[in-house]
Amino acid sequence: MSFEPINPPQRLLMGPGPINADPRVLRAMSAQLVGQYDPAMTGYMNETMELYRGVFRTRNQQTMLVDGTSRAGIEAALVSLIEPGDRVLVPVFGRFGHLLREIAERCGAEVHVIEAEWGTVFSTDAIAAAIAEVRPKVLAIVHGDTSTTVAQPLDEIGALCAANDVILYADATASLGGNRFETDAWGVDVVTAGLQKCLGGPSGSAPITLSPRAVDLINSRKSIEAGIRSEGDVASAHPIRSNYFDLAMIMDYWGPKRLNHHTEATSALYGARECARLLVDEGIPEAVERHRLHGDAMATGLTAMGLTLFGDQKHKMNNVVGVEIPDGIDGDGARAAMLNDYGIEIGTSFGPLHGRVWRIGTMGYNARRDTVLLTLAALEQVLRRGGVTVTAGSGVGAALDMYASA
Amino acid sequence: MSFEPINPPQRLLMGPGPINADPRVLRAMSAQLVGQYDPAMTGYMNETMELYRGVFRTRNQQTMLVDGTSRAGIEAALVSLIEPGDRVLVPVFGRFGHLLREIAERCGAEVHVIEAEWGTVFSTDAIAAAIAEVRPKVLAIVHGDTSTTVAQPLDEIGALCAANDVILYADATASLGGNRFETDAWGVDVVTAGLQKCLGGPSGSAPITLSPRAVDLINSRKSIEAGIRSEGDVASAHPIRSNYFDLAMIMDYWGPKRLNHHTEATSALYGARECARLLVDEGIPEAVERHRLHGDAMATGLTAMGLTLFGDQKHKMNNVVGVEIPDGIDGDGARAAMLNDYGIEIGTSFGPLHGRVWRIGTMGYNARRDTVLLTLAALEQVLRRGGVTVTAGSGVGAALDMYASA
Repeated sequence: MSFEPINPPQRLLMGPGPINADPRVLRAMSAQLVGQYDPAMTGYMNETMELYRGVFRTRNQQTMLVDGTSRAGIEAALVSLIEPGDRVLVPVFGRFGHLLREIAERCGAEVHVIEAEWGTVFSTDAIAAAIAEVRPKVLAIVHGDTSTTVAQPLDEIGALCAANDVILYADATASLGGNRFETDAWGVDVVTAGLQKCLGGPSGSAPITLSPRAVDLINSRKSIEAGIRSEGDVASAHPIRSNYFDLAMIMDYWGPKRLNHHTEATSALYGARECARLLVDEGIPEAVERHRLHGDAMATGLTAMGLTLFGDQKHKMNNVVGVEIPDGIDGDGARAAMLNDYGIEIGTSFGPLHGRVWRIGTMGYNARRDTVLLTLAALEQVLRRGGVTVTAGSGVGAALDMYASA
Repeated sequence: MSFEPINPPQRLLMGPGPINADPRVLRAMSAQLVGQYDPAMTGYMNETMELYRGVFRTRNQQTMLVDGTSRAGIEAALVSLIEPGDRVLVPVFGRFGHLLREIAERCGAEVHVIEAEWGTVFSTDAIAAAIAEVRPKVLAIVHGDTSTTVAQPLDEIGALCAANDVILYADATASLGGNRFETDAWGVDVVTAGLQKCLGGPSGSAPITLSPRAVDLINSRKSIEAGIRSEGDVASAHPIRSNYFDLAMIMDYWGPKRLNHHTEATSALYGARECARLLVDEGIPEAVERHRLHGDAMATGLTAMGLTLFGDQKHKMNNVVGVEIPDGIDGDGARAAMLNDYGIEIGTSFGPLHGRVWRIGTMGYNARRDTVLLTLAALEQVLRRGGVTVTAGSGVGAALDMYASA
C-alpha cells in the first residue's frame, strides 16, 4: 500500500467545531522545535500563561495548558479536584453536561444531577436550591453547550458557590473567546477550554485557569514522582488518581521549579500561544462582539429563509445556532450536498435532537461576513433542490441588511 | 505587554529528545483542518492505523493514537488494563520504570517492583523468577530507558508472559523506530510510543497498539457515555477509571462505529501520520540501521576524545549515548556553552546520574552524519576551553573513519 503526503480537500467548516484554523496559527505551529528547558521555550510557556490570563479575564497565576484535547482539560480539572466520595453537583442541560457527570463518576464522586430540557438553561434559583439540598464540594457545569446551542448564565453562580463553600468548575470549551466569560468577575474557580472553537486553532491543547482556592485544594493532594522525588518529600493521604492529569505536578512543570512531568507538546503550545495572541491583540470584548455580529447575521438569514431556530434564543451562544430541519428534507442528505457540492460542513446533532436539528457555527477564524453569506447562499440552493420553498435571496438579503445596519 | 509571533532560535537538538522535527512533518501539520467525520479525515485515521502497524511491526487491528504526549499513551494503556487491586510487576532499570510504577499505583494496582542498577538490564531469568513469585496480571516494562541509555531485551519476555497468562505492556517511547522492536514476533500485548524521539515529530501524539488478548480484556470493562448511550447498553462492573484514557471508547472512535469521544487533534494526527509514512517509506530495518550507524559514530567519536561511556554498552540504545562528564568540567556550564555558542543542545541526567553523565542523542531527523560531526567538533572546543586535554580532531576523525569503513 502506498500513502501520499497529507493534502486534505478545501473545506469551509461551519459546524459546531472544529472549524478552520486561522492560517497564522498553523504557521506558528510549523516553527521548528526547541528543547523543553531551552530559555526560548520556558519564555514561550510564561508568555502563554500571561496571554491566557487575558483570554480567561483573570489574574490567576495558575493559568496554563493541559496537553490533550478539551476533554483532557475537563478530566484534569475534575480528577485533581475530586476525591472518591466527594459530593459533586452537575446541572445538565445538554450532552456535555452528561460528559461532566460521567467524568466525575469515574473520579469516584457521589454525583448529583439536575436536568433542564435541551434548549433551555437553569435559573439561579434552581441551582441555589440544588446546592442547598446536595451541599456539594464541587459544582461542575458547562458554560455554552454546543449540543443545544445555549449558554448557561454564570454571572451569579460564582458568588452563590463562594457563599456555600463550593468550588465552581466551568467547561468553557465551546464558548470562550466568542461569548462573554469573566473568570474573576464571576468568581469561577476553575475553567477549561479547547482551541477548536472560538479560539481559532486545532484541537489538541486545553487552556486551564485555577483560582488560588482551587490551587490550595489541589496542592493539598500533591505527590511527587518516585523517579524525581527527594528525601523528605511526603506522600499525600489523598493522592490524585491520575499522573498525566495531576495539576499539582503540571503546576510545578509550568512554575519556577520546572519539575519534569510530561514533555510539553511544543507545536501545540506554539499554536495555543498564537490563538491567544491574536485574540488579545484584537481585544476580548471586540472578539466577542465579532462573534455576536456574525452569529446574529447567520440566525437572521436562516429565519428569513423560513427556517425555525431551536432553543431559547435569549440564551443562544454567539457562535452556533440550532435550526430545525424542514419537513421533507433528509438532514444528512442535505449536509452531504453542502459538503460535496459546496465544500461547506454544517453540523448534525446528538441525542434527542438527532435528525431534527442542524447546528451551524460562526466561530473563530470563520466568524466572518463572507463565510456567513456563502453558507446562506449554498443552503438556499440545497433546500430548494430538496423541495423546500425558499424565496430567492431571502437569507442572504436579510444578512446583508443586518450588516448594512450594524 | 506585547507579544511577538512565534520565532524560536535555531537549535540542533542532540539531547535525549525532543529532537528537531523532520521539516516534512511540520509541513504536514500546517495543512488546513477538515471536519472530524469528513471522509478525508476518517480516511487519514485509517491510513494512520495501517502505517503504525508497519512501525510497530504488528498485524493488530487496534493500532491508533492517543491524543496527548507519550505519557498519555502510558496512562491510557495502564488505566485501561488495570483494575484496582490487580497485581502488576514493574522491573525498574531507570527513571521511566519508576514512572510506570507510579502510574500503576495511581490506577490502584498492587505494584511489585524489582530493580536493576542504572546502566544495566534484567536477565530473562530474573524476570521469570519475579513472575513466578508475584503472579502478576500485567508486567509493565520500559524498552529503552533514555535516563540510562540502555534497552531491555524483550525478545524472550513475551513468550514468558504468555506462558504465565500475564499481559505484557512495553513503553517504547524512546526506542521505537530507532531500535529493533517486534511487537508480534516478541509477543508484546500493548506497546505505546511518542513522536519526539526516533519518529522525528513533535511531542503531543502517542501511538499505541493492542493485541487481541488486550482488546478482549479492555472491552470487558467497557461502558458507554451517558450522553450517547442507547437503551440496552449495560454498565461494566469494573469500569475504566478514566474517560479520556478509556481505550474501549477510543477504539470505538477509531473503528467503524465512529462513536464520538474526544475531537481528534487533527494537526497532531497529520504529523503522526507523516512520521510513520516517512519511516515506512524508508523501511523499518533501514531506519534502525541508520540509527545504529550514527549512534555508533557518536559513541566512537566520544571515546576517541578520551571520554568514558556510561552503562552496559552491549545493551546501549542506538539513539542515545551516556558519557561521563570529565573531571574538572562543570556539566551544566559546558551544556550552556554548547547551546549559547554553537546552538547545540545536549542532555543532562536525572537522579543518580545527575551531574555525572551527559546524554547525547542521534535520533529521528537528527540521526545524520552532519549532526554527529558538528556535535563532536563543538564538544571538542568546549572541552578544551574547559581545561580538558583533547587531541585535536580526535572525535571527528574517529567518526569519519567509521563512516568511511561503513
